[in-house]
Amino acid sequence: MIMSNVQGIAASSGIAIAKAYQLETPDLSFEKVSIDNPNEEIERLNKALEISKQELEKIKAHTKEAIGDEHAEIFSAHLLVLNDPELINPIKDKITTENVMAEAALDETANMFIDMFKNMDNAYMRERAADIHDVTKRVMAHLLGVTFPDPALINEEVIVIANDLTPSDTAQLNRDFVKGFATDIGGRTSHSAIMARSLEIPAVVGTKEVTKIIKQGDLLIVDGNEGDVIINPSEDQIASYRQKQQEFAEKKQEWAKLKDEPTFSSDGEQVELAANIGTPEDVAGVLANGGEGIGLYRTEFLYMGKSQLPTEEEQFDAYKSVLEQMEGKPVVVRTLDIGGDKELNYLDLPEELNPFLGFRAIRFCLENEHVFRPQLRALLRASAYGNLKVMFPMIATLEEFRKAKALLLDEKEALQKEGYDVSENIEVGIMVEIPSTAVTAKQFAKEVDFFSIGTNDLIQYTMAADRMNEQVSYLYQPYHPAILNLIHNVIEAAHQEGKWAGMCGEMAGDSIAIPILLGLGLDEFSMSATSILPARTQILRLSKEEMTAYKEQILSMGTAEEVVEFIKEKTQ
Amino acid sequence: MIMSNVQGIAASSGIAIAKAYQLETPDLSFEKVSIDNPNEEIERLNKALEISKQELEKIKAHTKEAIGDEHAEIFSAHLLVLNDPELINPIKDKITTENVMAEAALDETANMFIDMFKNMDNAYMRERAADIHDVTKRVMAHLLGVTFPDPALINEEVIVIANDLTPSDTAQLNRDFVKGFATDIGGRTSHSAIMARSLEIPAVVGTKEVTKIIKQGDLLIVDGNEGDVIINPSEDQIASYRQKQQEFAEKKQEWAKLKDEPTFSSDGEQVELAANIGTPEDVAGVLANGGEGIGLYRTEFLYMGKSQLPTEEEQFDAYKSVLEQMEGKPVVVRTLDIGGDKELNYLDLPEELNPFLGFRAIRFCLENEHVFRPQLRALLRASAYGNLKVMFPMIATLEEFRKAKALLLDEKEALQKEGYDVSENIEVGIMVEIPSTAVTAKQFAKEVDFFSIGTNDLIQYTMAADRMNEQVSYLYQPYHPAILNLIHNVIEAAHQEGKWAGMCGEMAGDSIAIPILLGLGLDEFSMSATSILPARTQILRLSKEEMTAYKEQILSMGTAEEVVEFIKEKTQ
Repeated sequence: MIMSNVQGIAASSGIAIAKAYQLETPDLSFEKVSIDNPNEEIERLNKALEISKQELEKIKAHTKEAIGDEHAEIFSAHLLVLNDPELINPIKDKITTENVMAEAALDETANMFIDMFKNMDNAYMRERAADIHDVTKRVMAHLLGVTFPDPALINEEVIVIANDLTPSDTAQLNRDFVKGFATDIGGRTSHSAIMARSLEIPAVVGTKEVTKIIKQGDLLIVDGNEGDVIINPSEDQIASYRQKQQEFAEKKQEWAKLKDEPTFSSDGEQVELAANIGTPEDVAGVLANGGEGIGLYRTEFLYMGKSQLPTEEEQFDAYKSVLEQMEGKPVVVRTLDIGGDKELNYLDLPEELNPFLGFRAIRFCLENEHVFRPQLRALLRASAYGNLKVMFPMIATLEEFRKAKALLLDEKEALQKEGYDVSENIEVGIMVEIPSTAVTAKQFAKEVDFFSIGTNDLIQYTMAADRMNEQVSYLYQPYHPAILNLIHNVIEAAHQEGKWAGMCGEMAGDSIAIPILLGLGLDEFSMSATSILPARTQILRLSKEEMTAYKEQILSMGTAEEVVEFIKEKTQ
Repeated sequence: MIMSNVQGIAASSGIAIAKAYQLETPDLSFEKVSIDNPNEEIERLNKALEISKQELEKIKAHTKEAIGDEHAEIFSAHLLVLNDPELINPIKDKITTENVMAEAALDETANMFIDMFKNMDNAYMRERAADIHDVTKRVMAHLLGVTFPDPALINEEVIVIANDLTPSDTAQLNRDFVKGFATDIGGRTSHSAIMARSLEIPAVVGTKEVTKIIKQGDLLIVDGNEGDVIINPSEDQIASYRQKQQEFAEKKQEWAKLKDEPTFSSDGEQVELAANIGTPEDVAGVLANGGEGIGLYRTEFLYMGKSQLPTEEEQFDAYKSVLEQMEGKPVVVRTLDIGGDKELNYLDLPEELNPFLGFRAIRFCLENEHVFRPQLRALLRASAYGNLKVMFPMIATLEEFRKAKALLLDEKEALQKEGYDVSENIEVGIMVEIPSTAVTAKQFAKEVDFFSIGTNDLIQYTMAADRMNEQVSYLYQPYHPAILNLIHNVIEAAHQEGKWAGMCGEMAGDSIAIPILLGLGLDEFSMSATSILPARTQILRLSKEEMTAYKEQILSMGTAEEVVEFIKEKTQ
């Protein structure tokens, strides 16, 4: 039994202690033999299909309940595959005409379709190939009588171990039983890390080797605060971590007391703590965690896992639901940001050499008004139900902002003529995530109503480093003085024109960044819902005046390391 | 006969009038028949191989003479293919054992090798596939008795028309006969455009459709000043363009008078006009065009078209040659900048999702000291022969600069211990091409000896737009106020610390940018050699004081369009 300690990236806070559950595909190989009774094989196939469908229905229902409709959609697609006669009939034909076993017929037919779809020059079709691949594995497991690991079917307390968790894997995790997870790859801003924080499951990612070291059933401690995974801990270690678990629970209780409080610094300066969400279902978590608003509503989920664009009505319903649930608190909705690493199957976007520097977000929307205008209409109609603020992503030039705003005003006028009720107080702002916009914030501040700094992309572009690329991820430095100077420039520009500046990147909820941002004068911090109460607790103890006094010194530092050391020293 | 006018991007100045020469691959299809006399087929194959080799030797010799050793290397690789028994013997075997015609044996064998190499997970091997493909086409053309278009064999005055020109196509263009060229794709900073300027051939690129509209032998006018291609012009048009050609020739004569003059503004302020080069052979052109120094010596050519890293000696010879030819004038050598769009076959760099935001230049060199140290040693040894300045590319953080400089000093000490003569006056500076560095230029200015602003990349990262991606190339805006503010910040920071600031991107030689850069206080402008004399002529007529007076106004403008209009109005 190996006892050891693996270091990774702390992706979601809290401490979990439970047995390891390796999430891996079992051996699905088989020996091909010819058969005597085709009907028997068809019977076996039908059974395997039936069980698979039942499982998928369960997973779908569970996902819908746990994290919402949008995430459940992927399993509808999987069920469609299993009900598709164009796939199933050829398998049965193969069994009867060639006298082959069900496993071989399934394998060969599925591979034929997968190859065919995979080679099509169309992202939607390639996605079909992935669906068929996933679903076939499940059916094959049932044919072979081997267990198919199903995170949704886990019914004892475990810590899930995997090379990586896809969004659909994470969506299936049952919070009652999955106490934590640890992966080989991924970073703090990977999909699975963001999802873990929204599910409030402790997680450590990017350990490089957990799947190699850990065996099924090993006892594990996952420390999502420090990024440690302890394998087969000693009694003393268990006791010490139970203690830490207890302390963390107490801390959470302390935080909970601040749930309905406003956010003040120790010297009485108020800021706003808002949350980033992806679906109307996320609002409950925001309110439970004391969010004072929605600082970023990512609308991409409405467009994902579908075979066509969402209608204006579907969008209206979603936006209205969020606005109503927030009862007049501010809701900043970002218009569609696809392209880059976010693809939409049915739009067949061009393949690009450098997608992060490519045709995405507002660039795409301004060229595709048939996609953009219905979203603007849905937003305008929903504005009557709450405090809506519209935000355009990836704005690099004033011309882009002017064009986007003109389309919004155009649709507003059209809707009013059609007799719809549209709010007259919609603020229109932009994400500041491209260096050009941060540099010329002064010019922008004259025309926009607000800024929200998107640090994930701003850092990536400012440092010219793809944060998903491990060889240059060391350059993804939120505390680099260049980033801080750009943030400062944006906040100053906003205040000079009487506008507000927020931040909706991961950085807004980071405990090193918060004192700096407070000192720079940030008005609104938007983060994962679960970070809000720790942030409020932290700000309560910080003096804004003191932090402001350090501003010039921090901005003229040479390296990120200096900044971090300084902040740690000043705030302990 | 179609008479029309196509608009493209002015890529290389001057006016050409000549017949169109379509550079396209002829029909190389054949009907496969069985043969009676294999020896006859082998004889035909041998002949086709022989003629192809002779042609390639000619092209190689011509390239070497016209533009230098480095460019000629690619044809050595092609000749190696034709002399490789591992390729040739299987073709002959196929003819004798299968009684197939030489065409079929060549085609099938070559395709087998191409497929094999193409599927290897190694960029060097994939490049071999491209070589075999190119060379096989030539042999096939000779077997079929069809003419293979060979830009190097053109022996009448023509304008070359192509979808795109690869660097090797451009390298083969014979300046005595090729009077201009026009392509469907490409931009002002594409390889072929840069090469056209260094060959002083008028060129228009990015016309989208010239190959479709123009027929072999159509009479053409290519206006590389305005970006126009006129197809089958009228007598009047020809006369008018002959006039323009004459005026352009006169202008060139006027420019030539300034060849040995220093560069002063009309109010007596001096700046330095330097050139960007790729090989020691380029220095002659720099001196002929009145360059006051080398502002950017790209060292990548030393590493390209080879099967292994260049030795320290090879590099030393190249650097020494440039320094000696420049006779004490400044020579800024940029250390290796590979990765991104520049690959090195034999290094097998990882494939990246966003190569422009990836593992390139200094990032690669700091991790691969076995590549970096020999270059630093070669540079240090060459420093004894002239006025060397060493420049590190893609610096994003102070730590990177400090590490790179430490390696340089480390090798300097080692060389001095080994008894080598190393200059004590080598300036060590950086390219400013990443926004983080431009923003924190003040911090960098304390440690570097100089800045050279690399606008091609700086614009790309600041606007978050891949300039090679046509859908977002509208965002590649050199005159955007954000770019100008960053440039201003870099120049101010340098001057505050008594350092100098130059620019080595395409922007430094641009007639709209020059007045702005003069006003911002740029010390050194480094450009294509052929742009130097026009730039000197332009600066002679500009008042630096006047341009400086416009500075604040320009820096606070909202859009690139406003800037361009303003400059045009003020400088007419």
